[in-house]
Amino acid sequence: MSKYRVLIEADDEKGLVHKVSSIFYHYDLNILSNSEYVDNENNKFFMRSVVDGDVNQKELKDSILSVLPKKSSVKVIDPKKKNIIIMATKELHALGDILIRHEADELEANILAVISNYDILESLVLKFGIPYITISPEGLDRSQHEQKIIKCIDDFENVDYIVLAKYMRILTPRFVETYENKIINIHHSFLPAFIGANPYKQAYDRGVKIIGATAHFVNNNLDEGPIIAQEVIHVDHAYSWKDMQRSGKDVEKVVLSRALKLALEDRIFVFANKTVIF
Amino acid sequence: MSKYRVLIEADDEKGLVHKVSSIFYHYDLNILSNSEYVDNENNKFFMRSVVDGDVNQKELKDSILSVLPKKSSVKVIDPKKKNIIIMATKELHALGDILIRHEADELEANILAVISNYDILESLVLKFGIPYITISPEGLDRSQHEQKIIKCIDDFENVDYIVLAKYMRILTPRFVETYENKIINIHHSFLPAFIGANPYKQAYDRGVKIIGATAHFVNNNLDEGPIIAQEVIHVDHAYSWKDMQRSGKDVEKVVLSRALKLALEDRIFVFANKTVIF
Amino acid sequence: MSKYRVLIEADDEKGLVHKVSSIFYHYDLNILSNSEYVDNENNKFFMRSVVDGDVNQKELKDSILSVLPKKSSVKVIDPKKKNIIIMATKELHALGDILIRHEADELEANILAVISNYDILESLVLKFGIPYITISPEGLDRSQHEQKIIKCIDDFENVDYIVLAKYMRILTPRFVETYENKIINIHHSFLPAFIGANPYKQAYDRGVKIIGATAHFVNNNLDEGPIIAQEVIHVDHAYSWKDMQRSGKDVEKVVLSRALKLALEDRIFVFANKTVIF
Amino acid sequence: MSKYRVLIEADDEKGLVHKVSSIFYHYDLNILSNSEYVDNENNKFFMRSVVDGDVNQKELKDSILSVLPKKSSVKVIDPKKKNIIIMATKELHALGDILIRHEADELEANILAVISNYDILESLVLKFGIPYITISPEGLDRSQHEQKIIKCIDDFENVDYIVLAKYMRILTPRFVETYENKIINIHHSFLPAFIGANPYKQAYDRGVKIIGATAHFVNNNLDEGPIIAQEVIHVDHAYSWKDMQRSGKDVEKVVLSRALKLALEDRIFVFANKTVIF
Repeated sequence: MSKYRVLIEADDEKGLVHKVSSIFYHYDLNILSNSEYVDNENNKFFMRSVVDGDVNQKELKDSILSVLPKKSSVKVIDPKKKNIIIMATKELHALGDILIRHEADELEANILAVISNYDILESLVLKFGIPYITISPEGLDRSQHEQKIIKCIDDFENVDYIVLAKYMRILTPRFVETYENKIINIHHSFLPAFIGANPYKQAYDRGVKIIGATAHFVNNNLDEGPIIAQEVIHVDHAYSWKDMQRSGKDVEKVVLSRALKLALEDRIFVFANKTVIF
Repeated sequence: MSKYRVLIEADDEKGLVHKVSSIFYHYDLNILSNSEYVDNENNKFFMRSVVDGDVNQKELKDSILSVLPKKSSVKVIDPKKKNIIIMATKELHALGDILIRHEADELEANILAVISNYDILESLVLKFGIPYITISPEGLDRSQHEQKIIKCIDDFENVDYIVLAKYMRILTPRFVETYENKIINIHHSFLPAFIGANPYKQAYDRGVKIIGATAHFVNNNLDEGPIIAQEVIHVDHAYSWKDMQRSGKDVEKVVLSRALKLALEDRIFVFANKTVIF
Repeated sequence: MSKYRVLIEADDEKGLVHKVSSIFYHYDLNILSNSEYVDNENNKFFMRSVVDGDVNQKELKDSILSVLPKKSSVKVIDPKKKNIIIMATKELHALGDILIRHEADELEANILAVISNYDILESLVLKFGIPYITISPEGLDRSQHEQKIIKCIDDFENVDYIVLAKYMRILTPRFVETYENKIINIHHSFLPAFIGANPYKQAYDRGVKIIGATAHFVNNNLDEGPIIAQEVIHVDHAYSWKDMQRSGKDVEKVVLSRALKLALEDRIFVFANKTVIF
Repeated sequence: MSKYRVLIEADDEKGLVHKVSSIFYHYDLNILSNSEYVDNENNKFFMRSVVDGDVNQKELKDSILSVLPKKSSVKVIDPKKKNIIIMATKELHALGDILIRHEADELEANILAVISNYDILESLVLKFGIPYITISPEGLDRSQHEQKIIKCIDDFENVDYIVLAKYMRILTPRFVETYENKIINIHHSFLPAFIGANPYKQAYDRGVKIIGATAHFVNNNLDEGPIIAQEVIHVDHAYSWKDMQRSGKDVEKVVLSRALKLALEDRIFVFANKTVIF
């Protein structure tokens, strides 16, 4: 008996739930959980089921596809640890939170490596027995630097997600396209407020009473990719922007870890630059 | 074309989603939204669907029942305004919030009357053109007083919910049994903390850093009925218990209105002294 | 024995707390509460004390001024109900919340009138015995319309605050300058995200996971005045922008009422387009 | 030029702020921040100031004491890293969060050692270069076991705080009295709800819609010590108690770290089994 996650994305039409559940019934699968959503604006149907039973993955997928409209997408996923690469720069709070969760076996993930433009976090990462690769940008232009990173990532097999745990360099379109909807970033503001550099300074200057963090997939437009998770905390006039930055770290790490968990559990659909999350 | 809410409660077994969705398909109904949950501990299946189509309500219900295990419960509800009676005592914040929402046509409800043990809130309620009935407990024992209230409520037809908007008298088992899972109360603490009288004073004495409110169905044990909604706010040492009470009012009214809205939209199942909310 | 709120704004220098508290001591005043803040960036000192005793208001003010740096501001306020005018358009949730709080005597305010560009809310407001003045913009250009509103407001004496409870027209610089830091607006987003029209639609299109509301003083630049209070709620993919709008109303009314309460209790300093709130 | 934290606790009387600030002025100290609170119920005055200047610590303390009522308490603290010992059992999330913050130099603390009744967390702790001491309870009664722990702690000098990062054994009155208001515990519920064992199971059984965590000083009555910080998260019917436990971990670690930070920054007064926090 195995457990599978079934993810379906299709043009909406009457009877989809019936058709899919008929197939589950046909294969004598038990539905452990089931979520559906119809995006009426785009006439899109999304479904995520967790089923339990004895079935061939490929056969189940093809059977479901056979009853869906053309150009539907079906994934039948055997839940196992996904492979992730973490990229970081100098700050360790977001990276550290992931390392501790990994150590506590809270994440369905193998951390293949941490890649950074500096060696500052190396000693911490090595403590956890995880490879640390410094790719210094010194003497390289952006494109050359990224080229080295891409090459480095390509040396690993089956990379499921790249997690930017406060990686502070902008990625080129080339990089982003290579790993479409596979790069998860944490931005230190409640987007779309304070896009770009030093959002805490921007927040301080504006005199806001809440600050936040946003985890999102990265696309070509800086900080404009599909949002996965957001959280805020209250601040007041007594917060300097350094205080905001300090307090914000706690939100950043929580939000990034939450988004990563959603991704690892195959709970996220991306459509029309938004996420559907079950 | 009509829209129906279908609520199903059944012993869980394989194929329920398939069977129910087959019937929707058979009647050419469009599923607008669909939620399911299985309580594994009690082997109970819950489902709430909103469907759209041309079908006889009774026939749909019977068809669904015919494919479910014995002793299942099916409701096919034509969404229309429900009839509610509000009971209050002296405070107007929770009552007032409901009156304003009613005036703004935010609630799927007809307010049949407000019943109170005092006439303090009468002028406010009458402004909104809603009957106000004072049933004074003076000279009556608890049982006699309630007897009068029950008689008064019985004079109204088809009462769907009784909302205790800070009604400050304890109800007898007799009353509660008469309106099982129809009475919604707001308790001014995050239950099960601070059961009983003056929870804000209790909270102050304990030195808590959060206070809250809980909306729940009323059962025979004081403040122990199934919880529908809860919310909290942060407080600090500078709050007197009167300050807590003042600030708490904002939470109370929000939580009670949220619970009422869930009830009016037929989103709540009650089972094993808990709620399943879709 | 009287209670006074003392508000001080001064260029910071050593000994200010000492100097001010010496004067309180000299006049045998009891300090009931005391808050201070130094804005180091602008070298500004802010202090709010509530004192209790027998003293001439004017004399106390002058004594404090005499020990402060030049160009300091001192207010000695006898706490009493402030006069407010509410402006609204068609939505009643924010207005209704203020009316109910006013009725419950929760606000230190007299509501002089509600002014609107429509008569839609008239019957509700009149129920509460508050004058309702419709100033229709029909046949008038913006400037003429505002001219009529200003004239109407000027007919009232001692207007302390103008509360825009979802007043949906943009005010001209002329209007705003006339009532500097006296106009409190509620904007239906967590500013500075989604400035301008229909922020819920903007939020929906961006696929955010939190929506919010911001209460702020109005200045010449749309939605850029000093922020008083902000709050958010979580949403998910299943929210249409209409759903966001509906849910957002609960945040809007809470935030506006909170900001109004802070203003009525003389807890807000405005400096450098920000607020200091004690 | 040095910076000092001045903490004052005194019976309240008129003129205290004046008297204390006069002394700051006399010594030419600059007040960087200042907080006061009067507990009217107990007639107690609390004050925390951060001052900056050139002064002898002992002299400043004595000068302040000389102007306060008898039996006042004054601390003049030179902010430097405090010494803490962490006690843990098997779970690493709360401990791990503190270790990462320590590594990131976010905490004003030296971690002298981690003491545990098991060796499960040893390899993690040693990675960070921190001593790990396993004191197994095997073959010992509670009192003997604690005796060994006390002896172990006594071997360290100047222990400021003992942090119970999910230490799952109950401490005896003897232990607690030895370290009065020095032991910070994290309880996995929003106290006073769900005192005692397995609060998540209790919360699940009660069907609550929020769960939480409470950091508090430990006193003789289980889970009844002065509360420092509390936080909650929302849950729904779909959470098993294991899910609650998993999600609760994120709250536990945040709340414990927040409480620890407050303690390390000398922001907490304890009085009448409550905390005053500046």
